[in-house]
Amino acid sequence: MTERLKHRVYRANMALPECGLVKLTWGNVSAVDRQRGLVVIKPSGVPYGEMKVSDMVVVDLQGKQVEGSRNPSSDTATHLELYARFPDVGGIVHTHSTWATSWAHAGAPIPASGTTHADYFAGEIPCTRPLSREEVNGDYELETGRVIAATIGTTDPLHMPGILVSQHGPFCWGKTPEIAVQNAVVLEEVAKMAWITGTLNRQTPVMDSYLLNKHFTRKHGPNAYYGQK
Amino acid sequence: MTERLKHRVYRANMALPECGLVKLTWGNVSAVDRQRGLVVIKPSGVPYGEMKVSDMVVVDLQGKQVEGSRNPSSDTATHLELYARFPDVGGIVHTHSTWATSWAHAGAPIPASGTTHADYFAGEIPCTRPLSREEVNGDYELETGRVIAATIGTTDPLHMPGILVSQHGPFCWGKTPEIAVQNAVVLEEVAKMAWITGTLNRQTPVMDSYLLNKHFTRKHGPNAYYGQK
Amino acid sequence: MTERLKHRVYRANMALPECGLVKLTWGNVSAVDRQRGLVVIKPSGVPYGEMKVSDMVVVDLQGKQVEGSRNPSSDTATHLELYARFPDVGGIVHTHSTWATSWAHAGAPIPASGTTHADYFAGEIPCTRPLSREEVNGDYELETGRVIAATIGTTDPLHMPGILVSQHGPFCWGKTPEIAVQNAVVLEEVAKMAWITGTLNRQTPVMDSYLLNKHFTRKHGPNAYYGQK
Amino acid sequence: MTERLKHRVYRANMALPECGLVKLTWGNVSAVDRQRGLVVIKPSGVPYGEMKVSDMVVVDLQGKQVEGSRNPSSDTATHLELYARFPDVGGIVHTHSTWATSWAHAGAPIPASGTTHADYFAGEIPCTRPLSREEVNGDYELETGRVIAATIGTTDPLHMPGILVSQHGPFCWGKTPEIAVQNAVVLEEVAKMAWITGTLNRQTPVMDSYLLNKHFTRKHGPNAYYGQK
Repeated sequence: MTERLKHRVYRANMALPECGLVKLTWGNVSAVDRQRGLVVIKPSGVPYGEMKVSDMVVVDLQGKQVEGSRNPSSDTATHLELYARFPDVGGIVHTHSTWATSWAHAGAPIPASGTTHADYFAGEIPCTRPLSREEVNGDYELETGRVIAATIGTTDPLHMPGILVSQHGPFCWGKTPEIAVQNAVVLEEVAKMAWITGTLNRQTPVMDSYLLNKHFTRKHGPNAYYGQK
Repeated sequence: MTERLKHRVYRANMALPECGLVKLTWGNVSAVDRQRGLVVIKPSGVPYGEMKVSDMVVVDLQGKQVEGSRNPSSDTATHLELYARFPDVGGIVHTHSTWATSWAHAGAPIPASGTTHADYFAGEIPCTRPLSREEVNGDYELETGRVIAATIGTTDPLHMPGILVSQHGPFCWGKTPEIAVQNAVVLEEVAKMAWITGTLNRQTPVMDSYLLNKHFTRKHGPNAYYGQK
Repeated sequence: MTERLKHRVYRANMALPECGLVKLTWGNVSAVDRQRGLVVIKPSGVPYGEMKVSDMVVVDLQGKQVEGSRNPSSDTATHLELYARFPDVGGIVHTHSTWATSWAHAGAPIPASGTTHADYFAGEIPCTRPLSREEVNGDYELETGRVIAATIGTTDPLHMPGILVSQHGPFCWGKTPEIAVQNAVVLEEVAKMAWITGTLNRQTPVMDSYLLNKHFTRKHGPNAYYGQK
Repeated sequence: MTERLKHRVYRANMALPECGLVKLTWGNVSAVDRQRGLVVIKPSGVPYGEMKVSDMVVVDLQGKQVEGSRNPSSDTATHLELYARFPDVGGIVHTHSTWATSWAHAGAPIPASGTTHADYFAGEIPCTRPLSREEVNGDYELETGRVIAATIGTTDPLHMPGILVSQHGPFCWGKTPEIAVQNAVVLEEVAKMAWITGTLNRQTPVMDSYLLNKHFTRKHGPNAYYGQK
């Protein structure tokens, strides 16, 4: 069972450069096996072109490495904190994709400006506050997870499956690692679209709330009618 | 005969990711067989990489499914309304292409700024008004078709073979599904060019009307002299 | 000999989509054989994916078709006028490349902002005046060649191997069709760089004239020392 | 031993067009063999598609050609000056990559706006002053190396492994030619991100210094914990 999950996590990681979301060794995808209390994650600093399924690292929910000869991603503690806070989440993605990262640099949330956004994110995509000096110099990656969870707050994380970490970049998630990668693709695209929209019309209001709700519920929830049954 | 049209619609749909106009499962192309009163359209939410000719869905002009085991595109009612309103149109394309969609988010028409535009669109490419709450919560996809037709008004739809739906994205059309896809390629390109032009020179006037007319008629109508006989 | 030139013109035309300078059937390359008084040019409106060497059209310097079963490019008269005016030019390229075309839409010349520009163009790349209604409605393509030649004026066309036609797009040229295509690649790149530069610093002055001259003469003229002997 | 280094320099040069950092014959990579006092560098003006390992040129530290039948890069004197000034540097890269070059055109340093930047560059990436008329008309390429070294000053060049040359473009370096190429990839990406960030928020302050320091030391120095041991 871990073998199958390692294969899925490997494939989801390989999708990041294929979709143009990362360069060099940037980015990472993980998935959780809730029954067995295990997380499979990308190894740290291994080039995508050389990465193999057997390089995937398995850690328990406390971060203890239980399988694999590689070091896990240096962002592992962030992933573990999010799995602890978001019980419905099955996969997490971190990238430094160009447009989403630039919004994170600016410390600005991405406004919902159209249905492409509304099909996946049920409102404005938030940006965290900057971490404090103490948080950065302390348990940095854990604190990153904590500030993400605090920013999402009581929102259903499956309704807001991504966030910008201030001065850093995006984290996305979903029921599965494959869906988490899809959300990272969409986040990058809506980040670019929102940027273009803003330059065309600085006064563009956010989209009509009933249209946002219509499109999100066309794809999610009990009355969804997009896609195949 | 339906088999041949299904193959053409399949090929036209596959051209959307090949031309960089869509990501994931976004977008859809349809074609109409006016003699038999049938429309062939992309299935809803099927990834392009897995889609087969046999996944194409056939509906009649009232939307009743007559062939295929998949659900048709969730935008089918929009396509049917446009076929009803535009008797000369043989194919329709919907995408969320980046630059055209961003103009739709801004609620702004795309000004005719050069001959690339004039070769295909005989003037400014319009943007619809936003749909009302009632239209969105009612028969949403049908209303989308209605607002498109109302915005085109009495213009020959083959002279203005595309439009932006406010807060949503572009729809294009043409005599055939292949021409409709070409118009979607051009719309995305002129959306990007018009954006760059606007940032270079906020006072750029629209192009000279006689140049616009010259280029459109070089390619269309009785005196066209572009291309092979 | 015409066979060899047809092959070169074919290859130069195919380089346009390969270099991302054109979409669909846009753009055209020609070359002249001065000894025999013949011009080889792309056929009008043939998709690049289907074009063959045997589709190239041969016309004499008055535009009379002497070889080939296809119609020549609708821009043939522009090419012929430039060959008549610029005796050292051996190849001409027309594209609708995105950034250069957008400068043409804005009616603005491209300022020399760095050495990438200076390596190929010995100063600001000019933009023609708009054609008048009479010129557009008269012998349009010939008038396009005339306004290009008038704008280049007494400048050596090999020192300024390209221009923007107002509201239309770029034309480039060179001693050979291969060099003309290279100049079209460079024009598109410096158009993009000049745009980015302008948004970073609206007050950026043009580059120092001695640096411009140094880089142009490093690559051109009797003291050039770039490249292999 | 030179054969092996020639192969590495060849591969590093070929990575430039593969990573989208150069067009045509632009750009060059070199590496130094400190023991033997030799530098291997790209030949001048050879198209990447035709370049072979045997085209690499070997010069000594005074610039005397000791191997190869091609002319070395016209920028060789710049590389040699940097090897003389930066004893820990093993490889140097010069490109005209689009976004970094545009910052160089604007004469502006690239501010550190996020962790992507901080992972590789320990602060703002500087831009040199423009060269004077005397420097340009004198030993131009040597003066380019001198102004780079003067701008880096007493900073550890491995902490600031790249720079913008005013009105020209970027030079990057590293312990090896492969790392130098990586730094050129990162420089282009952070140049683009910083541009987007600046357009989103002209008041964006530079990133927090403790976050910058955290990310640089996560990847560099005695306490680095990114990657595999």
